Amino acid sequence: MRILVAQLNPTIGDLEGNAGKISRVLEEAQRDKVDIVQFPEMAICGYPPEDLLMHDDFVVGVEKTLTGLLPKTRGLFVVIGLVRHSESKGEKFLCNSAAIIHDGKLLGYHDKWLLPTYDVFHERRYFEPGKTVKVWDFKGKKIGVLICEDIWQHAGDVDFTKYACDPVTELALLKPDVLLVSNASPYRFQKREIRVHVCAASAKTLKCPVIYCCQVGGNDQLVFDGYSMHVDKQGQLVQLAKGFEEDTMLVDLDAPSCVCPFNYDPLRDLCSALILGTRDYFHKQGFTKGCLGLSGGVDSALTAYIGVQALGAENVLGLLMPSRYSSEGSVTDALAVAKNLEIKTHTISIEGPFSEHLKLLTPYFQGKAPDTTEENLQSRTRGTILMAIANKLGYLVLSTGNKSELALGYCTLYGDMAGGLSMLADVSKTQVYALAQWINRNEEIIPRSSIEKAPSAELKPNQKDSDTLPEFDVLDHILQGYVEDCLSPEEIANKNQLSLALVKEIIHKIHLAEYKRRQAAPGIRVTKKAFRVGRRYPIVQKWM
Amino acid sequence: MRILVAQLNPTIGDLEGNAGKISRVLEEAQRDKVDIVQFPEMAICGYPPEDLLMHDDFVVGVEKTLTGLLPKTRGLFVVIGLVRHSESKGEKFLCNSAAIIHDGKLLGYHDKWLLPTYDVFHERRYFEPGKTVKVWDFKGKKIGVLICEDIWQHAGDVDFTKYACDPVTELALLKPDVLLVSNASPYRFQKREIRVHVCAASAKTLKCPVIYCCQVGGNDQLVFDGYSMHVDKQGQLVQLAKGFEEDTMLVDLDAPSCVCPFNYDPLRDLCSALILGTRDYFHKQGFTKGCLGLSGGVDSALTAYIGVQALGAENVLGLLMPSRYSSEGSVTDALAVAKNLEIKTHTISIEGPFSEHLKLLTPYFQGKAPDTTEENLQSRTRGTILMAIANKLGYLVLSTGNKSELALGYCTLYGDMAGGLSMLADVSKTQVYALAQWINRNEEIIPRSSIEKAPSAELKPNQKDSDTLPEFDVLDHILQGYVEDCLSPEEIANKNQLSLALVKEIIHKIHLAEYKRRQAAPGIRVTKKAFRVGRRYPIVQKWM
Repeated sequence: MRILVAQLNPTIGDLEGNAGKISRVLEEAQRDKVDIVQFPEMAICGYPPEDLLMHDDFVVGVEKTLTGLLPKTRGLFVVIGLVRHSESKGEKFLCNSAAIIHDGKLLGYHDKWLLPTYDVFHERRYFEPGKTVKVWDFKGKKIGVLICEDIWQHAGDVDFTKYACDPVTELALLKPDVLLVSNASPYRFQKREIRVHVCAASAKTLKCPVIYCCQVGGNDQLVFDGYSMHVDKQGQLVQLAKGFEEDTMLVDLDAPSCVCPFNYDPLRDLCSALILGTRDYFHKQGFTKGCLGLSGGVDSALTAYIGVQALGAENVLGLLMPSRYSSEGSVTDALAVAKNLEIKTHTISIEGPFSEHLKLLTPYFQGKAPDTTEENLQSRTRGTILMAIANKLGYLVLSTGNKSELALGYCTLYGDMAGGLSMLADVSKTQVYALAQWINRNEEIIPRSSIEKAPSAELKPNQKDSDTLPEFDVLDHILQGYVEDCLSPEEIANKNQLSLALVKEIIHKIHLAEYKRRQAAPGIRVTKKAFRVGRRYPIVQKWM
Repeated sequence: MRILVAQLNPTIGDLEGNAGKISRVLEEAQRDKVDIVQFPEMAICGYPPEDLLMHDDFVVGVEKTLTGLLPKTRGLFVVIGLVRHSESKGEKFLCNSAAIIHDGKLLGYHDKWLLPTYDVFHERRYFEPGKTVKVWDFKGKKIGVLICEDIWQHAGDVDFTKYACDPVTELALLKPDVLLVSNASPYRFQKREIRVHVCAASAKTLKCPVIYCCQVGGNDQLVFDGYSMHVDKQGQLVQLAKGFEEDTMLVDLDAPSCVCPFNYDPLRDLCSALILGTRDYFHKQGFTKGCLGLSGGVDSALTAYIGVQALGAENVLGLLMPSRYSSEGSVTDALAVAKNLEIKTHTISIEGPFSEHLKLLTPYFQGKAPDTTEENLQSRTRGTILMAIANKLGYLVLSTGNKSELALGYCTLYGDMAGGLSMLADVSKTQVYALAQWINRNEEIIPRSSIEKAPSAELKPNQKDSDTLPEFDVLDHILQGYVEDCLSPEEIANKNQLSLALVKEIIHKIHLAEYKRRQAAPGIRVTKKAFRVGRRYPIVQKWM
């Protein structure tokens, strides 16, 4: 039995375009005489469609698209993920389903049982859970079909949830010969190991191979990494599709298999996730060009590198916007990274508009000492210049802040936070350094001096980040404990041997900066818990 | 039987402060020798606590606060809303509960059955639903206790959901003598009638009075309007607490009652919601002063009026920031509203920094005609000045855009969109005019010329909004149909007798502006469907 696993990159709501991708795979499958073709979860509309699901004409459109695809499945057994109206009289009116099709005929559906409603997932907002499983007979084999989360409870790998039922256990009673799982499982750092574990748990229980077909691509803040898998009945990974690109993987269940080496580099994956997330954010919207402020620091250098990988060097523009406080090193470092990346730069001093603003405001600032107001003013002048260049010349602005800064509010609203995409918004300063070192593993691309110098916003004389912030490695441990793992201050202090007062002070700052993050540019989610997507905290609160 | 209904305004997460409010009501009840005291849903932590619920120390803190309150209930039967750990082995680990207490002793809990997971509600993200109802015996009466959404299914008034069960029907079998419902039901325009209908449906089925105790106050984007109610067993409204402020309402079930007149003015309520939402957003964060740009238009005049009502005239500062394109009328209208409201103004021309920016950018703009870039530049210069004044002098910026502009992206990111609170973000231009007329019902507060002149952004010579936008009444009908009611373009065109092409063009623009709204300041939700809160749409999509 030969199965073609179609790891596609759909665009949300592009029913025609997505159906085109599906059709081309079906043609390939017919040409190559495979038996089964498997598509990801919600392949017709892309995942996650969010509140487009509230529009009945959208759901009807998806259903009609499926009907249009049926004649194209001649000779094949096909599984396609989609959304559809629920047939049950349940609480919600839709189901997250997989259509099971044979030779042009719709055999039925599997409706997803386990509906993740935590972190970035809101499936209970839209869907009624399925309540039955069955196996589908095809060429003498019993085919089981499940969708994504359906197999996670069985492996015990779900967050903040313990589903009362387990479709894998139910399915085991029906003794399937193979399990096809259609997925849209977003990337996060080091998630790949977990997915193999999840597939292996089902394979061992069912005593049959598991074919795990994944969506790939960036959709807003989520990146789907692909890496569709074939896990044999012993629970061993025997085939792995490409990461971070479209792929079709042919699985021959009758061919001898051997264990697939599972070598991968978590930092390469992280870098690939940022590149794909950036590229799809631009290209799916019809943008080709990105510009950014080049400060000479490591964050903007890394942003420029990833921008170039995503969009091409000819489509990235670096703006140097020095002020009276800029060090000479910051200009030479910015020019050095631009030279290494072969990107164009413009240098526009902010002194003129900054001075004009100060002059205007002086009468109102009488008797007040300089403070962050003047620092923000410089940053906002830069934001205004970047946006003007972008508006006039057709660029999208890449903002350059990292997760550690965003956590503490060490950034200026409408200043360095301005932009269409905040690429590093979920990358801590620790990870920024790790990525820079990884990128430089063979040659110096990110200037060594950008990596080695003490971080500074250069918004007042001789400023260093460490004047007002703890060292980044300390900070990032607190962030990990509080933002990602929801630990108490006491647990974080104990685990990292830090003073409880420091931990509480940092947590307080994280909450205080919530209002800034609410207006931050979208980021690309690469950790267990990103700001803005999958994390909902009140601005106005007095807990911490 | 005398029941004290405590309509409180909690702050999210302020367990100590909220417990203080509860304690003071309990003391009042003991003094006045009432029998029962009823508090709103989640009175201990405030509603909605959002992902603070992911922190176990938060939930433990709430539970401990309840324990601390028990000794203060001597002689009373008390119902208090809170969050707690679930006792069942369900999917989620928490329950949204009401603690039932008598004379210092915790009798048990009612766990909310119906968990709204649509629009602004995400209760399935956190809570396991309750599965039983009971009545509590007290002084020979059977007391029923339910929480908010529990009684909505019975009246058929839920959105995008049809719960499979109905706690009211179950409770009817137990023949309660009175039903106490604890609520946190957010305000929206004309929702009050619906709530009476909801209470009446339960009262008629149960053949007993319904006491509906509400949270009041603003929490981030949601405003809770109060208006706790006593509906008699015939389903008639017989007592109504105050709207938009804390109140305690004493219900005597044995006293004769007569139908309570239900006169209210929807525009007064809308105005009150904006005032309370603004006041609580400021005061609960410790801010007292707001500043805004006064353009001479009706939006900024209305924002200033509401700011003054919320914060006091002495705490509102208007900034006039004229440019080469400002009409004389815009300055005189801005000064007129400031005079009427008795607020201070500063006038700061943007010409200096605007010219400096243009001078800097000229070399890069060669061969390009003036376009929205130059318009955005003016708006961003104003945003920068406003933020500098706010940063230095301790104001929070009130941005002045309305929902119709935000829908179409007729606004500048980091320019007129800059601010801590976007007060009118959920008020359409049609409603802005209606509110202005209502405010002027006795005397001219909003200058008549601000209301009557054609809307203009004044960002280029002789500009009018209608140059690029359809008339606002047409636009607002399309917005209502698409954003609030999720109708298809065909349905909207037919219903309003508009061309399908126009409707589709506007819908397309609504989706295109999604990226701007993602970075908009928080607004105050006053309609069925507000941007940012309760509405989740992808930025990158090709549906419309």
